[in-house]
Amino acid sequence: MRGVILHGPGDVRVEEREHPEIIDATDAVIRVVAACVCGSDLWPYRGADEADAQKMGHEYVGVVEEIGSEVRTVKPGDFVVGSFVISDNTCEICQAGYPSRCVNATFVDGSIGTQAEYARIPYADGTLVATPGTPSQEMIPSLLAASDVLGTGWFAADAAGAGPGRTIAVVGDGAVGLMGVLAAKQMGAERIIAMSRHESRQALAREFGATDIVVERGDEGVEKIRELTGGLGAHGVVEAVGTQESMMQAIRATRPGGSVGYVGVSHGVEFPGIELFFSLIHLHGGPAPVRRYLPELIRLIWDGTIEPGRVFDKVLPLDQAAEAYAAMDQREAVKVMLTP
Amino acid sequence: MRGVILHGPGDVRVEEREHPEIIDATDAVIRVVAACVCGSDLWPYRGADEADAQKMGHEYVGVVEEIGSEVRTVKPGDFVVGSFVISDNTCEICQAGYPSRCVNATFVDGSIGTQAEYARIPYADGTLVATPGTPSQEMIPSLLAASDVLGTGWFAADAAGAGPGRTIAVVGDGAVGLMGVLAAKQMGAERIIAMSRHESRQALAREFGATDIVVERGDEGVEKIRELTGGLGAHGVVEAVGTQESMMQAIRATRPGGSVGYVGVSHGVEFPGIELFFSLIHLHGGPAPVRRYLPELIRLIWDGTIEPGRVFDKVLPLDQAAEAYAAMDQREAVKVMLTP
Repeated sequence: MRGVILHGPGDVRVEEREHPEIIDATDAVIRVVAACVCGSDLWPYRGADEADAQKMGHEYVGVVEEIGSEVRTVKPGDFVVGSFVISDNTCEICQAGYPSRCVNATFVDGSIGTQAEYARIPYADGTLVATPGTPSQEMIPSLLAASDVLGTGWFAADAAGAGPGRTIAVVGDGAVGLMGVLAAKQMGAERIIAMSRHESRQALAREFGATDIVVERGDEGVEKIRELTGGLGAHGVVEAVGTQESMMQAIRATRPGGSVGYVGVSHGVEFPGIELFFSLIHLHGGPAPVRRYLPELIRLIWDGTIEPGRVFDKVLPLDQAAEAYAAMDQREAVKVMLTP
Repeated sequence: MRGVILHGPGDVRVEEREHPEIIDATDAVIRVVAACVCGSDLWPYRGADEADAQKMGHEYVGVVEEIGSEVRTVKPGDFVVGSFVISDNTCEICQAGYPSRCVNATFVDGSIGTQAEYARIPYADGTLVATPGTPSQEMIPSLLAASDVLGTGWFAADAAGAGPGRTIAVVGDGAVGLMGVLAAKQMGAERIIAMSRHESRQALAREFGATDIVVERGDEGVEKIRELTGGLGAHGVVEAVGTQESMMQAIRATRPGGSVGYVGVSHGVEFPGIELFFSLIHLHGGPAPVRRYLPELIRLIWDGTIEPGRVFDKVLPLDQAAEAYAAMDQREAVKVMLTP
């Protein structure tokens, strides 16, 4: 079968590799129906993270082909959505709502790589959630979004305390930031400020529920958020980039006692202790516990309440994965779906 | 009247200064019945923070002498406890529970200085809480503790998610750490691990509710906490020191999804972004919103449920303030009460 390998910065190849098979009794093998390129895939693509012949891809929807003898909740033929982290969903950490740090957690990236035709998913019961039936073609992008960007934006909005009466600002206009806007809207936030300087992304942010757009960045962006919030700052801020500048922007745009939900994978970020101390904010983030939210997200997609799949603005066959990476790297596409 | 001035590192003097008077209609002037030396006073005392003829002291209980024309909730003769931060208790930040970052917040340290015979308290309605009557002499240390160390330990335990079924570790065996133990106990924590290598403080921690003592520090201390918690780490950790080592100890001793409540004033701390990201913990802390908790803390002290005043192990007259600072600096005393 074919799958994407990143051989080094900018070097994306679709190569033949072994067809995955059941190894453990808790495994499932799925046929990948759709995968995609994540903003976080761009870190190694750009050389900011190491990549040495790494299997790529951690977002996926598919159809179960085969299951191990102990798998109970999914069966061959089921259409499934999985999280980007393998989890058993039974350990104490999973049960407390943090499957992305399950005691048996494995990142799908590298170890599995779902930008491929097939994938072996360990702990299938704990990782995969079956949809109520076979989805329409139109619904597939939305279900795929749930696998990471939607679940991640959802977690960030949750961590930022989105809810009725709240003003939520979103730093980052990539797919995760846009999903943060959608999530904040769904959670009932009164005012959602998207920080973006790209017209097409601003438009998408407004479609997803943004009430205000701030084009300024850094301290100017912070000043603008303060102006919009009676001088106090937002109740909560979603940070969906992962740089020092974006993190400080998020922290400084939050009012005392407010919350930053940060999901941009930190790259070279150092939080200044004394500033954080006097900010008196709540800080929560990390690899999103997507599995916790999947049943709810699938339900909201299935009943048509949300349509996160609109974040995909390009679809390419798996064989053109290199083009997909390039399009996202150049910001020509917000998010690219790959169909094997 | 007399009050403590810190002229420079180690240079504590009790000097004559002007008797405070009502300036604004929302002011009260109180006669300080008891004040004390805080762990945070040791930072400038030791030269870690600047001190240039600074008025010292931010913990206080006293009797109202005089009030401005707009003060409604306290009156002359009332015995009052106040927070270490002046707050109006009416602004949006106060109403959300964060009076220590009130839009009209002023730190009592420096601007007022309650290691003195009298003090002018701005925003008296928002800052002071009257006790139900005149307290007994025995109760005064406990009420004084509520002014900062108890309220701060309480906030930290709250931020650390202390509650039934929870294991809470406490980094720091100073007065705030010990109050964190008491608070965690009062909030129903199942297991409370005090990290301390001083026998007398260990004994006090046990009296306040610690179920376990860990003497190891740094990574060894973290390892020990993991051993005690099935390899997962504590549900929550109170950080009550403020150094890089203590902060990393707190973060690393917390399980994924758990919470660090940090109240040690950060000195030279930098949080490594990537480690914090993957830790997936909640981080909340800063100058404690003591005023939020004061009514409840006074009630618990008044009805004898808690006796935080046991944290004071030395009482000196105000004139011997220099001796009080030296005793705490040398760790000969956990906390020293000063009586004007």
